[in-house]
Amino acid sequence: MAVYTHVPADALADFLRPYGLGALRSAKGIAEGVENSTYLLEADAGRAVLTLYEKRVAATDLPYFVALADHLQGGDVPVPAVLRTEAGEAIRTLMGRPACLYRFQDGVSPAAPSPGQAWAAGEAMGRLHAQLADFGAERPNALGPAAWRALADGMGAALDTMEPALEATVAHALDRLEGGWPMDLPAGTIHADLFPDNVLMRGDRVTGVIDWTFACTDVGAYDLAVAHGAWSFDAHGRQFERRVGDALVAGFDSARQLSAPERAALPLLAQGAALRFLLTRAHDWLHMPADALVRRKDPVPYRRRLDFYADTANAEIWG
Amino acid sequence: MAVYTHVPADALADFLRPYGLGALRSAKGIAEGVENSTYLLEADAGRAVLTLYEKRVAATDLPYFVALADHLQGGDVPVPAVLRTEAGEAIRTLMGRPACLYRFQDGVSPAAPSPGQAWAAGEAMGRLHAQLADFGAERPNALGPAAWRALADGMGAALDTMEPALEATVAHALDRLEGGWPMDLPAGTIHADLFPDNVLMRGDRVTGVIDWTFACTDVGAYDLAVAHGAWSFDAHGRQFERRVGDALVAGFDSARQLSAPERAALPLLAQGAALRFLLTRAHDWLHMPADALVRRKDPVPYRRRLDFYADTANAEIWG
Repeated sequence: MAVYTHVPADALADFLRPYGLGALRSAKGIAEGVENSTYLLEADAGRAVLTLYEKRVAATDLPYFVALADHLQGGDVPVPAVLRTEAGEAIRTLMGRPACLYRFQDGVSPAAPSPGQAWAAGEAMGRLHAQLADFGAERPNALGPAAWRALADGMGAALDTMEPALEATVAHALDRLEGGWPMDLPAGTIHADLFPDNVLMRGDRVTGVIDWTFACTDVGAYDLAVAHGAWSFDAHGRQFERRVGDALVAGFDSARQLSAPERAALPLLAQGAALRFLLTRAHDWLHMPADALVRRKDPVPYRRRLDFYADTANAEIWG
Repeated sequence: MAVYTHVPADALADFLRPYGLGALRSAKGIAEGVENSTYLLEADAGRAVLTLYEKRVAATDLPYFVALADHLQGGDVPVPAVLRTEAGEAIRTLMGRPACLYRFQDGVSPAAPSPGQAWAAGEAMGRLHAQLADFGAERPNALGPAAWRALADGMGAALDTMEPALEATVAHALDRLEGGWPMDLPAGTIHADLFPDNVLMRGDRVTGVIDWTFACTDVGAYDLAVAHGAWSFDAHGRQFERRVGDALVAGFDSARQLSAPERAALPLLAQGAALRFLLTRAHDWLHMPADALVRRKDPVPYRRRLDFYADTANAEIWG
C-alpha cells in the first residue's frame, strides 16, 4: 500500500485529459500495491486507477504488463484493462516515472478469507493459468529461487536484528531448497503475488485480480504455493486454517488439474514461497526510507510459515 | 495524509451496514488528512468517507465536530455532512477508535493555486465565519499561542537537529509573539487548517471544505493568516506569490469585511501561524513512528515563512 510519489492535482488532470474520460472530478492517493504509487481518479465518464511504477519495476517491463492485461480481457476472470489515450498510448510518463491508467474494478479484498472465498480465488488462478497458456511473452522471475541466496547474502547478519538466529534459519532453508527444488514442473505465466489484497471480491465472487507487478514466467504450482501461504494463515503466521488452504487448492484443481508431481512438490514450493516473502520483507524492512508512505511488513510471520511447511509432521496438510 | 489504522474489509462492511447505503462495493484507504485514518467507501447507494480519529483528537471532541458539520449544512459553502445510522448514531467506534462517516465531496485540491482559486478559498472562509457566527459550541485552540512555548520547550535542543540554530529562532519568535499578540480581535469558530489540501475545487469553484479536525474558537483573522502562509508560498517556503496572497485576503474581505485592527494584526498573526506549523511539524518529525503510513513534513519551510513575515521589509505585502 503506497503513495511514494505525490502527484499534484493539475498534473493528474493533465495526465487524464487525452483518455477521453472527461474532466477530473476527484483524485485520491490510495493505499494499494506495495511497489507502486496508486491514485484513484474519478472523471466525468467513470473511474480509473493510475499506477506510477517505482523501485523494482523497470520501465522496460511495462510492455509485458500491458500485453498481459490485454491478453486477459474478455476472459473468465476480471482483470483491470489498460486504458489508452486517444492517440493509442498505453504507457506514458508522469513525474518522471512510467505510468499506466487502468480501468477501476469493484470489490473489496477479503480480510479473513472464508473457504468459499479461497476456493473462488484458487479457481480464478487456475482459469488465469489456462488462459495464459497461449500468452507468448516471457519474463523471468526476478524474485525466484535463483535470486534468494544473493538477497540473503546482501543482508547477512542484519537478519538477526529482526529475530535471533534468522540468518542461520535462512541459510538452512536455502541449502534445503536449492538441493531439492523441482526443475521439471509445468511452467507458464503466473501472478506470483496472489495475496488476498490482490483479489477483489463481492461475497464469494471474484470481481478483480489486481496488481500484476510480479507476474512472470515460472512454475504454475509455485503460484498456488505463494497463495497458500498468503491465504491460509493469520497475519502473524501462527494459526494455519486448513479448510481455507484445502479450498484454495481444490478451487485451483477444479479449473486446471494438478498433476501428481505438482501435488508432491507443493510442500517444498510452499517453503520456497515463504522464504521469498521472508527475504523481500526483511530487505524492505532494512532499506525502506522512513518517510515512505508505506507500512513496513514484518518478515517474521513468514519465518513461521517456513517452519510450518518444513515440519514434516505437517506434511499431511496437502490432503 | 494517512492510514494509521488498517481496517479489514469485513469490519468496513459491518460498519457500513446500518447506514442504509446498501452493500459495500469498494474500499480504499486514502492519503487524506494528517491526523486521522481515512477510507473512501463505495456502497450501492453512493460514496462516503470514513474517518477514524487518532492521536490528537479526543473522543470527547467528536460531538463538537458533528454539531459543526450539521450547522454548516445547507449553507453557501459545501462541507461534508455527517451521516447517521438508521438508529440515528453519528459517532461510533471502529477498531477501538471513534469513527464518523461523511458524505463524499467531489473536487480536487489545487496544487499550485491560482489567484482565482485563492480568492474563492478566501471567500469561502469568510462565508463560513459568517455562517458560524451563531454556532453556539466552543472548543479552545489546543495548538494556539498558549501552547507554543510548551511545545518548543518539549523539543529543546532537538530542534537544532533539524536546522542549525532553530531553537534560538523559535525562542526569539516566542518572545516577540507573546509580547505583541493581539488579545482583542473578533473571535469565533475557525477552521484553523485551511491549507489547499483541505479545499476541494473544480476549476475556481469550491466544492468542499474538508478536514475540520483543528476547528476551534479563536481569532477570525488568525484563520486567514494560517491560510495565507499555506496558499501563498511554494512548498519550500522560499517563493512568495503575492498575487495569490492578495487574492486570498480580498476574497475573505469580500465575504466578511476585515476591520482596520484585523488588517494591522495580520503580519503578526501570520508569524504566529508560521510558528505553529513549524512547531507541530518539528514535533511530528521527532516523534512519528517509522511505520506510520504518513509522510513526515519538513518544518524548515515554515521557519522560512516565519522569517519572511517577520522581516519588516516585507510589511507591505498586506496591501
